[in-house]
Amino acid sequence: MFASRHFARRLATRSRRWASTHASTPALNQVTEEDLAHFAKILSPQFILSTLGSSSVASSELQPFNSDWMGKYHGNSTTVLRPRTTKEVSEIVKYCNERRIGIVPQGGNTGLVGGSVPTGRGEIIVSLGNMNKVRHFDAVSGTLVADAGCVLQSLTDYLAPHNHIMPVEFGAKGSCMIGGNCSTNAGGVRLLRYGSLHGTVLGLEVVLPDGTILDQLSTLRKDNTGYDLKQLFIGAEGTLGIITGVSILTPPSPQASSNAILALPSFDSLLPLFQTAKRELSEILSAFEYIDRGAYDLSVRHGQGRGLSPEEVEGAECFVLIETSGGRREHDEEKLNDFLEHLLGEEKPLINTGVLSQDATQFASIWGLREGITEAVSKEGKAYKYDISIPLSAFKQVVDATREQLREKGLLGPHAVKEVVGYGHIGDGNLHLNVVAAQYTPEIEAALEPFVYELVGKYKGSISAEHGLGVMKAHALHYSKNEVSIEWMRKIKNLFDPNGIMNPGKVLPPPEHQPLLANTGSATTA
Amino acid sequence: MFASRHFARRLATRSRRWASTHASTPALNQVTEEDLAHFAKILSPQFILSTLGSSSVASSELQPFNSDWMGKYHGNSTTVLRPRTTKEVSEIVKYCNERRIGIVPQGGNTGLVGGSVPTGRGEIIVSLGNMNKVRHFDAVSGTLVADAGCVLQSLTDYLAPHNHIMPVEFGAKGSCMIGGNCSTNAGGVRLLRYGSLHGTVLGLEVVLPDGTILDQLSTLRKDNTGYDLKQLFIGAEGTLGIITGVSILTPPSPQASSNAILALPSFDSLLPLFQTAKRELSEILSAFEYIDRGAYDLSVRHGQGRGLSPEEVEGAECFVLIETSGGRREHDEEKLNDFLEHLLGEEKPLINTGVLSQDATQFASIWGLREGITEAVSKEGKAYKYDISIPLSAFKQVVDATREQLREKGLLGPHAVKEVVGYGHIGDGNLHLNVVAAQYTPEIEAALEPFVYELVGKYKGSISAEHGLGVMKAHALHYSKNEVSIEWMRKIKNLFDPNGIMNPGKVLPPPEHQPLLANTGSATTA
Repeated sequence: MFASRHFARRLATRSRRWASTHASTPALNQVTEEDLAHFAKILSPQFILSTLGSSSVASSELQPFNSDWMGKYHGNSTTVLRPRTTKEVSEIVKYCNERRIGIVPQGGNTGLVGGSVPTGRGEIIVSLGNMNKVRHFDAVSGTLVADAGCVLQSLTDYLAPHNHIMPVEFGAKGSCMIGGNCSTNAGGVRLLRYGSLHGTVLGLEVVLPDGTILDQLSTLRKDNTGYDLKQLFIGAEGTLGIITGVSILTPPSPQASSNAILALPSFDSLLPLFQTAKRELSEILSAFEYIDRGAYDLSVRHGQGRGLSPEEVEGAECFVLIETSGGRREHDEEKLNDFLEHLLGEEKPLINTGVLSQDATQFASIWGLREGITEAVSKEGKAYKYDISIPLSAFKQVVDATREQLREKGLLGPHAVKEVVGYGHIGDGNLHLNVVAAQYTPEIEAALEPFVYELVGKYKGSISAEHGLGVMKAHALHYSKNEVSIEWMRKIKNLFDPNGIMNPGKVLPPPEHQPLLANTGSATTA
Repeated sequence: MFASRHFARRLATRSRRWASTHASTPALNQVTEEDLAHFAKILSPQFILSTLGSSSVASSELQPFNSDWMGKYHGNSTTVLRPRTTKEVSEIVKYCNERRIGIVPQGGNTGLVGGSVPTGRGEIIVSLGNMNKVRHFDAVSGTLVADAGCVLQSLTDYLAPHNHIMPVEFGAKGSCMIGGNCSTNAGGVRLLRYGSLHGTVLGLEVVLPDGTILDQLSTLRKDNTGYDLKQLFIGAEGTLGIITGVSILTPPSPQASSNAILALPSFDSLLPLFQTAKRELSEILSAFEYIDRGAYDLSVRHGQGRGLSPEEVEGAECFVLIETSGGRREHDEEKLNDFLEHLLGEEKPLINTGVLSQDATQFASIWGLREGITEAVSKEGKAYKYDISIPLSAFKQVVDATREQLREKGLLGPHAVKEVVGYGHIGDGNLHLNVVAAQYTPEIEAALEPFVYELVGKYKGSISAEHGLGVMKAHALHYSKNEVSIEWMRKIKNLFDPNGIMNPGKVLPPPEHQPLLANTGSATTA
């Protein structure tokens, strides 16, 4: 709660500043009862939720749409629209563009950077959850065409009998939606194997900010006929339009999967281990996840997963979870066994020990160690989460430097920051740096930002590897993107959305943004 | 020669029409001796080739830059610039933009659609061949950063001792350059395994049409900080800027590769065979190439590669080349052997017979059958080449329908069209339809176009799967892209290149293009 209040204060201060220096930026309008009457011509009454008008609902009913799942970001939209067709989305957007009403597109609302929550600019929320049909699947080519509001898990379930899997996988798979996955260019544990959505998405259907439907819902694996416009919407976090349909290439289900948890004597073993794994496991290596000692202990302490015995953990500086997926179990197991024997047989072994899963329960339990870190962190305290891309060799340095920074500021200890831990996808160069505090405080935030962003900038890294910018990091974009790039992002934004109605306040840093509405006192947070 | 003259005539006719209906489109300027003097301030004299000025060269010296390798497209640029640095490219482009001089960016000039050849708008050619340095390689992550003018084969050679390979591979690898590969989003035989350049390219350095250097040369595998602008330049064929540097993810070298050529009793076996191969070979399947009977016979007749004996070929309607690449030879061979035995052991076998390569020579020879088709076709006659994406099930229908169309027009036979053959990448849904004629004639072209494009449109396919649009297919874009998409392509073009200097006449269909220069009589061809 504190974080969000603090956040609101900061944003409000900024907005005043922008308002004075960018007075010409047009403010957006609030939704009125007249607008509601118009929406009622587009949607059936049950698909309009509003605190306004004759059929108004209590604001608590809008709460799940106005807040993110972490409870960190809060908006105060009066109106949620839940269209069922692309045409309905188009009509809503066209009207909002004419009326200059901001729109927050929302999928599963599982993001980590506040990208799917309103920012107090009077936005309506367009929730895609009612667009949840599979439109087409071709088992020969593996192409799947689905509505944007399909929940990832439901698509996985749909594909299973056809022996295909989704190329993406996240902890939030039970809630997140494929349109949101694409809008945020979500990464996840399968990226190492199947590549990013920029490669696997074959086509998109997008409602542009003027209401036009851009139909690029191709199912072709190859199509070199001009600019690949759909790529702009992958990772645009809904600021250039609303994705309403997705065509995606799904891989065949692997016949067999195995995993192992390995204890490393020292971080220095990590890179040689990664290189050895890439060489010996090559095409069957499907995950290579890093877990530092602090993250491992946290996960075990809070009962997440099970792997090594306390004796086996002794003397380990960090851990690696390896997963293989392949076409024939006996081949995969032979490769994995040989790899582990080879590792342990070295004169100066890269690992202390390891456990190879023997059955589905152990397999799940080892993954539980890795996937349970998020929950363990939130059980332990309040988390400041940074999701960064840096050189693999710097993973430990960055965690250590952050801890040292907090120590120097006197902020390390049970009263303030309890843990600074790191884990992530080595194969993708993606570190999750988590700072676990007793409370969110301005002092801790001031010690961390811009410190972490500057550190990332020094390594020419990315301040957001896979979470996106949302509202959390828009102001820090310049640590990862140079001026020319930001300028061209603005030009693209202005070309598609000259009135700035699409997910205002997200992705791009302040100058081009609308000021918060002057007439809403507690604009940002509930 | 005939084709190019015919082409010139057609283009000239069009240009007059555009000139009258779009009189406001600014014409581009010719290069003058004053301009040359300015270029001499940017580049050393040996890097300026021009038929103008005091150090002029014979126009024959410009011939390799003014014509494509097939001898199908001819330009008449007076000036070729060969910069060595990004800064030099930037200065050239900035000047040309101010002076409204058109620019044709040129890499290895190995395209198939005339995209790298001038179109008679007085363009200069900027050849990237002098920018040929590897800037950086990281063996842990596999990221390679290279100048755009690096020849693909030289990058492959550079990576070999580091046990990595390029994610793309083409017949033209000895000449084509990585910048051109990206600009044209080239596909090739490795796409099935490693995906498209939209996924493997991590970053680009691009000189924009106003001379600004857009540095997005990231080496990060994951970076979700805003719009992925680099994607726009992948496949833009140099119409939005000049790619000067490329950062690309290179995969580890496979430890073992095998291949086999299979004879199929009927086209109907093809799809079940593909599904079986995907299931049984899964992650080691690295190529699945289709060759119809006509293409196979042509390749053998002209001595390209060697596979099956004449007896084995008997009764085969088509052929498939399968390649596997994996991490352990004995595992891969076991999988491939089991797969072939399984195929032959069926009650109604999907294949008549097959040959599995036993050594490197046989491996190369089997690939020779497939890769030799292009050369065999050009030895046989003059080829009309269509590179299309269509549903796999329609590969044969499209070839048959095209043959039937030519038969109906009385154009089938030794005097006109000798062969209509099909081959291509089944895994990618990409068919190469080749019509081999005694001569290029307007009658044959009229029978083929728009017939083939309409056929592709009917299947919601792509008129250019991997070759691009260039000058050949720009006018046919609407068969693959709807009006909204084309309109947004234009908006993007106008945003980046309002003066229309970048590779004019390519990619986008006529209306927005500059008219040909009124003062050059034989504008298009030499």
